[in-house]
Amino acid sequence: MITATERFKERLAALRASLKAVDGLFISSLVNVRYLTGFTGSSAFMLIGRKSAFFITDPRYGKDAIKDAGPCYEPVVIGKAKFPPLVKKLSEKAGIKRLGFETSASYALYERLKAAGLELKPAKGLVERIRMVKGPEEVESMKAAIRRAEEAFIKLKPYIKTGVTETALARRFEEMLRMGGRAQLPFPVIAASGPNAAIPHARPTGRKLAPGDLLILDWGSESGGYFSDMTRTLLIPGGDHTAEKKKIYNIVLDANREAISFAASGKTASQIDNSARYVIKQAGYGAYFAHATGHGIGLEVHEFPGISRGSAVPVRDGMVFTIEPGIYVPGLGGVRIEDMVIMEKGRARPLTRLPKDLRMNTLGGK
Amino acid sequence: MITATERFKERLAALRASLKAVDGLFISSLVNVRYLTGFTGSSAFMLIGRKSAFFITDPRYGKDAIKDAGPCYEPVVIGKAKFPPLVKKLSEKAGIKRLGFETSASYALYERLKAAGLELKPAKGLVERIRMVKGPEEVESMKAAIRRAEEAFIKLKPYIKTGVTETALARRFEEMLRMGGRAQLPFPVIAASGPNAAIPHARPTGRKLAPGDLLILDWGSESGGYFSDMTRTLLIPGGDHTAEKKKIYNIVLDANREAISFAASGKTASQIDNSARYVIKQAGYGAYFAHATGHGIGLEVHEFPGISRGSAVPVRDGMVFTIEPGIYVPGLGGVRIEDMVIMEKGRARPLTRLPKDLRMNTLGGK
Repeated sequence: MITATERFKERLAALRASLKAVDGLFISSLVNVRYLTGFTGSSAFMLIGRKSAFFITDPRYGKDAIKDAGPCYEPVVIGKAKFPPLVKKLSEKAGIKRLGFETSASYALYERLKAAGLELKPAKGLVERIRMVKGPEEVESMKAAIRRAEEAFIKLKPYIKTGVTETALARRFEEMLRMGGRAQLPFPVIAASGPNAAIPHARPTGRKLAPGDLLILDWGSESGGYFSDMTRTLLIPGGDHTAEKKKIYNIVLDANREAISFAASGKTASQIDNSARYVIKQAGYGAYFAHATGHGIGLEVHEFPGISRGSAVPVRDGMVFTIEPGIYVPGLGGVRIEDMVIMEKGRARPLTRLPKDLRMNTLGGK
Repeated sequence: MITATERFKERLAALRASLKAVDGLFISSLVNVRYLTGFTGSSAFMLIGRKSAFFITDPRYGKDAIKDAGPCYEPVVIGKAKFPPLVKKLSEKAGIKRLGFETSASYALYERLKAAGLELKPAKGLVERIRMVKGPEEVESMKAAIRRAEEAFIKLKPYIKTGVTETALARRFEEMLRMGGRAQLPFPVIAASGPNAAIPHARPTGRKLAPGDLLILDWGSESGGYFSDMTRTLLIPGGDHTAEKKKIYNIVLDANREAISFAASGKTASQIDNSARYVIKQAGYGAYFAHATGHGIGLEVHEFPGISRGSAVPVRDGMVFTIEPGIYVPGLGGVRIEDMVIMEKGRARPLTRLPKDLRMNTLGGK
């Protein structure tokens, strides 16, 4: 295992190697700043040239704000008013003519820097593309987040029964996931039952679980700044149309497994998306799967690469992403089964472990 | 009390009245969308012309996503790929030539819309300026949020004692404030003790409360989407330099009271800022008060107007903002006392009620 300082040096070197159309990059995304320096405060910028690299923060944090990454960056403490001219001055000092500007930043920031006389060139996702491939310590954090998420699910299970409302279930789940404040939630828990399960991003309502419900639970946890994200669908015995519910469950499960076994180094994200989509389409439910098959995950819950129709990124070792096909039938309900996988030795290996087969996800089932 | 639909109509009319340098406004801020429509989902845009007004969302939410605001807007459901040309088409339909663009939006969005051939004109804070003045139902929500925040503080008080760590205190406080998931936290609780209290935005550490500490607690709650924000500083008896700690406490309290009584219709935000700053400066601690005196608050925890040196906005009835002067002395500790006030009948009336005098904020004091 390399030291944290060496890790930050490697990341900076990778970023510099990606400076092609620009001489330098101005970084305003706090997630990117965290990735490059470990800084977790709420106000910092970076300016990266081919030789120089500056970490810019305000007096609240001061020069000691980055520790392990300290040797990589020259610290600069600013008063806010003088900010754009300072960036101009540092750019000149670093010999940067064409300065890359992250397009995730606000237009207001773009205007302020431009007014200071900087030659800005929109640069999309330079750091994000490096972040796609995770290092061992990042994977460890995600595994810890998954462990928290799966343990909370196991603790929640006895409370999942008819008569409980979606809201009550989601709140209890969130309390468990937060672990008394030690973990952040990447997003509010989705608990969608019965007809509500036909809405991919439903919010919990006062609806009570009832016999025959499909119940979609989509939840995440966090560890060391890294997130987990997974979904399981439970069937509550009883009710109508049981055969069709079981059928769509198993189609989604097939699609999930197919995409995981299909994913291999060199396949593009859109090919992986298609491998799940094809299973659902062949089963006659193509129109009921309207979202992407998955997404990268790490310091953000949605990262590059999207596992979607339009994404030509070839996957490779170290990438971590979700596989989450779904079928949503208005009136009947819906099924989504979401795992996190890591690319290792050319194949996708699931990181999430909770069982997926229907029997284990039928209430009262073993 | 007017109906919700009438309220949304009024807000739309106010926005239209502010369209001066532009023929229409493209809205991407979800907070502004919520303010204008009540929509609380994660994906929506609006296009406001002088006559037409569109609410644009995706198939996950559909045409029924806005209820009370429905009569004000023509709903448009989109597939994401066709988004910029759609905005172009709707702009033409609405007769908009110069389209205002919120500068809080990302540069990437600006680029995409521009590429579709729209004539964009940066428009800063049009909706935010309307949001500065709160209606009675907004004030009710903020009062409810404050009630939750103050009740949680009262419940927390017995746990504040020497030996407890900042982190433990902050976690317990956050659990109380979340009310089992019914309230969101606007920001993580600040619990800064002893020397840590000299850092205005400190994060909780493993430091244990000790005799002689000044303990800054800064916390918020939420109700109906509206936030509260307040700070109290507690003195733990014992330790050294008690006289100076009491002295800076009372200077900050004087500054807080002075700004609240100074604030009157027509005074500018910078004059109010200065009224607090002057008290601290006269007492010889000017260099130890490095932040602004306050900020507007509502659907966001920091809104217009900033109560700061640079803000020429005159305050007026219906505005809600914080008054939070502070003194931070490295090594010794710090004091901040933050109230929320509302402008009513030309004067500032405090909405926060917890006692501020030193005796009531001395541990073991009554």
